[in-house]
Amino acid sequence: MNDRVEALRAELSKRGVDGFIIPRNDEHFGEWVPASAERLAWLTGFTGSAGMAIVLHDRASIYIDGRYTLQVRDQVDTGIFETRHVSDEPATAWLREALSKGQKLAFDPWLHTEAGLKRLGAAAGAAGAELYALDSNPVDAIWEDRPAPPTEPVVPHDVKFAGVPHDRKRAEIAESLRDQGHDAAVLTLPESIAWLLNIRGSDVPRTPLPLSFAILHADATVDLYIAPAKLSSETRTHLGPDVSLHAPEDFLEGLDGLTGKAVLVDGATAVAAVTQRLKTADARLTMGTDPTALPKARKNATEISGTRAAHIRDGVAVTKFLAWVDAHEPGTLDEISAADRLEQFRREDNLMRDLSFDTISGSGPNGAIVHYRVTPDTNRTLGDGELFLVDSGGQYLDGTTDITRTIAIGEPSAEMKDRFTRVLKGHIALARARFPKGTSGSQLDTLARLPLWEAGIDFDHGTGHGVGSYLSVHEGPQRISKLPSNVALEPGMIVSNEPGYYKTGAYGIRIENLVTVTEVETPDGERPTLGFETLTQAPIDLRLVDLSLMDETERDWLNSYHAGVREKLAPLAGDAATWLEDATRPV
Amino acid sequence: MNDRVEALRAELSKRGVDGFIIPRNDEHFGEWVPASAERLAWLTGFTGSAGMAIVLHDRASIYIDGRYTLQVRDQVDTGIFETRHVSDEPATAWLREALSKGQKLAFDPWLHTEAGLKRLGAAAGAAGAELYALDSNPVDAIWEDRPAPPTEPVVPHDVKFAGVPHDRKRAEIAESLRDQGHDAAVLTLPESIAWLLNIRGSDVPRTPLPLSFAILHADATVDLYIAPAKLSSETRTHLGPDVSLHAPEDFLEGLDGLTGKAVLVDGATAVAAVTQRLKTADARLTMGTDPTALPKARKNATEISGTRAAHIRDGVAVTKFLAWVDAHEPGTLDEISAADRLEQFRREDNLMRDLSFDTISGSGPNGAIVHYRVTPDTNRTLGDGELFLVDSGGQYLDGTTDITRTIAIGEPSAEMKDRFTRVLKGHIALARARFPKGTSGSQLDTLARLPLWEAGIDFDHGTGHGVGSYLSVHEGPQRISKLPSNVALEPGMIVSNEPGYYKTGAYGIRIENLVTVTEVETPDGERPTLGFETLTQAPIDLRLVDLSLMDETERDWLNSYHAGVREKLAPLAGDAATWLEDATRPV
Repeated sequence: MNDRVEALRAELSKRGVDGFIIPRNDEHFGEWVPASAERLAWLTGFTGSAGMAIVLHDRASIYIDGRYTLQVRDQVDTGIFETRHVSDEPATAWLREALSKGQKLAFDPWLHTEAGLKRLGAAAGAAGAELYALDSNPVDAIWEDRPAPPTEPVVPHDVKFAGVPHDRKRAEIAESLRDQGHDAAVLTLPESIAWLLNIRGSDVPRTPLPLSFAILHADATVDLYIAPAKLSSETRTHLGPDVSLHAPEDFLEGLDGLTGKAVLVDGATAVAAVTQRLKTADARLTMGTDPTALPKARKNATEISGTRAAHIRDGVAVTKFLAWVDAHEPGTLDEISAADRLEQFRREDNLMRDLSFDTISGSGPNGAIVHYRVTPDTNRTLGDGELFLVDSGGQYLDGTTDITRTIAIGEPSAEMKDRFTRVLKGHIALARARFPKGTSGSQLDTLARLPLWEAGIDFDHGTGHGVGSYLSVHEGPQRISKLPSNVALEPGMIVSNEPGYYKTGAYGIRIENLVTVTEVETPDGERPTLGFETLTQAPIDLRLVDLSLMDETERDWLNSYHAGVREKLAPLAGDAATWLEDATRPV
Repeated sequence: MNDRVEALRAELSKRGVDGFIIPRNDEHFGEWVPASAERLAWLTGFTGSAGMAIVLHDRASIYIDGRYTLQVRDQVDTGIFETRHVSDEPATAWLREALSKGQKLAFDPWLHTEAGLKRLGAAAGAAGAELYALDSNPVDAIWEDRPAPPTEPVVPHDVKFAGVPHDRKRAEIAESLRDQGHDAAVLTLPESIAWLLNIRGSDVPRTPLPLSFAILHADATVDLYIAPAKLSSETRTHLGPDVSLHAPEDFLEGLDGLTGKAVLVDGATAVAAVTQRLKTADARLTMGTDPTALPKARKNATEISGTRAAHIRDGVAVTKFLAWVDAHEPGTLDEISAADRLEQFRREDNLMRDLSFDTISGSGPNGAIVHYRVTPDTNRTLGDGELFLVDSGGQYLDGTTDITRTIAIGEPSAEMKDRFTRVLKGHIALARARFPKGTSGSQLDTLARLPLWEAGIDFDHGTGHGVGSYLSVHEGPQRISKLPSNVALEPGMIVSNEPGYYKTGAYGIRIENLVTVTEVETPDGERPTLGFETLTQAPIDLRLVDLSLMDETERDWLNSYHAGVREKLAPLAGDAATWLEDATRPV
């Protein structure tokens, strides 16, 4: 990596600046970036899903979060990059120390929001230095074999899966724009555009979205900025006359056309290149939230019945896999072979297009690493007396799945059963919860943790994230988390229910089902009340349940869940069916 | 009131302004204000604990919250004052409409924070008008028989109750100021000063505090601005040489002495007269939080054992009262006679100094009015088949109490029992909760509501508030509420646990105990874990409990709580002791 950092420093000298900031995100601020935008990985070697490096002439640093403290040491030359924890040791302190008065710290305005730049600018300012916008990215200038931006084909997402044609979606969002006095909204998140126009693609891994920008006007017409090569004539027909197609390089010019208009932009994800251009064009800017976020999160009836169906077929694949694991003696399988077999089972389905994320397949101590991804170097066998944690999902045309099961290999210890049962009790408490309209996920988070808290333990991740419909497996704006949130859970929203427990160096436990928010009848009740319907259909390992810790209500839930699984997975036959019968027996 | 409003308008004309804002608060922003500061009540007739009026030459408006929608109609001439709901119909809209361009809306800078003025200024600005600070309050100018500001005696609060002498408190807070780089803190909340200097007074009702301002310097000395008439020589001796005494009218001059100093001020409660003066004096201002807030909230061992003792004696009084109510036939008592009798029982105690708030004594439909205060006009008898809700507390030298009990008069309905039992289940869930260090009250709030949510019902108030130690019965910064909070619960904090249910026009239910946060041992646990110890000692009405809705854990809690009450209230004798025996029988 040394050569690359030196080449970058030479490039920075040529441009007359003293440093450069390299974030992991691309100009869309999504979870995945295409190979052409993996600048952080190319420069530093670090392949985690979040991070940022700063290269100065004499020093360099990289900022990662708690998930990646081990990985960063394996991947990054710490002789070049000082590694820092992004929240415990933010760049502010390092910059104050490493920058000198009058220096220019450069950035690519396509890779930062204005809010992010404000924080970095304050840090640079504390050292008497200043931020400096570059016209083009200096990493791209020195990256000789940089992959071309992806131009994968864009396909229509059939209304039989989407539920609502895109003209109706455009009309509805346009109406909400008019209601709030906006003339247009600039959409920079590809998920939003894919949802709005009922299109899908494969520009990035694991999420079926085409990279693009768009302007939605208050008259429901759209200017779509997307590489023409991606669009078949079928897709052009699908988009129709109200969606005007433009080359991505014309996007900034398109923004210029919004002079004098009231324009809504998502302040959390729109990059400075976009917002600055709108200001230069004298648009009247509102930094709000993406107008498609809530409508996209509230799944319609077609999407809900689609995801129910997808979850049943996904449950068939997962159950075959669970039966297959059980049919093997302890010590005969390993993490990689297991993950591969699970993928094969999933790929037997006609509507399955991809995994929804890289499978987490962790046995024993690897299960305790929350964002573990197996490599040949870390691959472990599934040993006797160990726990095996598998977190996986599929992208089906009718729905996106995400499920975690923890499996006993051989005989589990009493402690493992105690911990598993507490996680299960938390899972059940959340699954059974009823709550008044207006309740946010942060108000429900504690229900999933209380049985762990009672034993003086906890888990250090969120309890639930939103999930898209044949779209991103992590979707906002709702979530279930300790962090305060004002976003109310609404009928049709899909969230995960995934409490866990992790004993470092020993084992990890997580039980994850997806649930959807539903209206609930309460006889004699006074307030509109909501609850959850569990979508995921696969057995929970009864060998890990300590029934003495469960009350009657919890046992009833477990038995009723398993009865439902058995009934819904009737398509199963042979050994897997026999296995399922036993795995879902009433307890 | 018409004369008073007309007199105010004449005064405003004389001063060349177009309107005046009259908030309910005084210059200390506390819950209670002395009679001399009841300007809102004097001008409008409205006696609620929160509100604001705006008087213009041709129009006037008053802003109240949901508690006072009925009361405001009884007390205020709505021909003069347009009544508005403070959050649904904030002054912003009214001001935009009622003010004209170039007009001056006047305010008293001793009665508003800068943040509050910013909001009002924006509203006035939207109409092209502007805010205008007056040197003296025009209401005071026309209020002929205005009471003098209180000069009640200030007494030392014995260290046997306070636990820590004031020199140590001053030294500790001063150290925290130095650690954060402050030279001084300006204290404007009388509770803070009373706690810091171990003094108490009786300038306002129900809270034993002397009104004063203070400057705490980083060398642990204090400048105290307080009417000299309040201070006996004993109190002067108690305060000692490190506390310099000044007349209140010298306070602004005292602030001038902070020129160039780094000064901490509580932005939420310090009035603009103070912060502006500090700015004029070129003090380096930090708008933070009162440095005494957290240390005051974390009760020391003496305060905790004091409050335990106070709660036992309070429990004796409450139990005598409950037995006395039960000894009367339905229809023979009324709300006023009951509240009076309860106060008499409390006043039998030597350390009792006052009620901690005006007793809420509500039978039948009056119990459903959350902040009900009985008057001769509203007084109801305790009728057969009704519920009687009593929320009351005492100020004892060793602790402040606050308890709500709901009592069946005659035979309760099945619905009443269902609702009461759900409230009790929520109360128990919160009382039993264990949670890791760092957890806020907002993370626990749902535990108290879930059994109600399951039936489609809820209550529209917070679940718990902090409580002082022979000080304010409502104390921050911790609380248990739906509203997000970043304040972690810490050992020694006292909070109320008071879920409820209110059926408008029918009955109200609330079960309130005070609890204190304690450290909890968790064998095999990994994280420092906290829980609650219940302080309040009085029976919960078993006639209202539907045992079929309670699980074993809940029943165990109730029996164990009652066994503790029976044991701790052993001082009781005669009929009350016999009654207690039955009222706390295991179920």
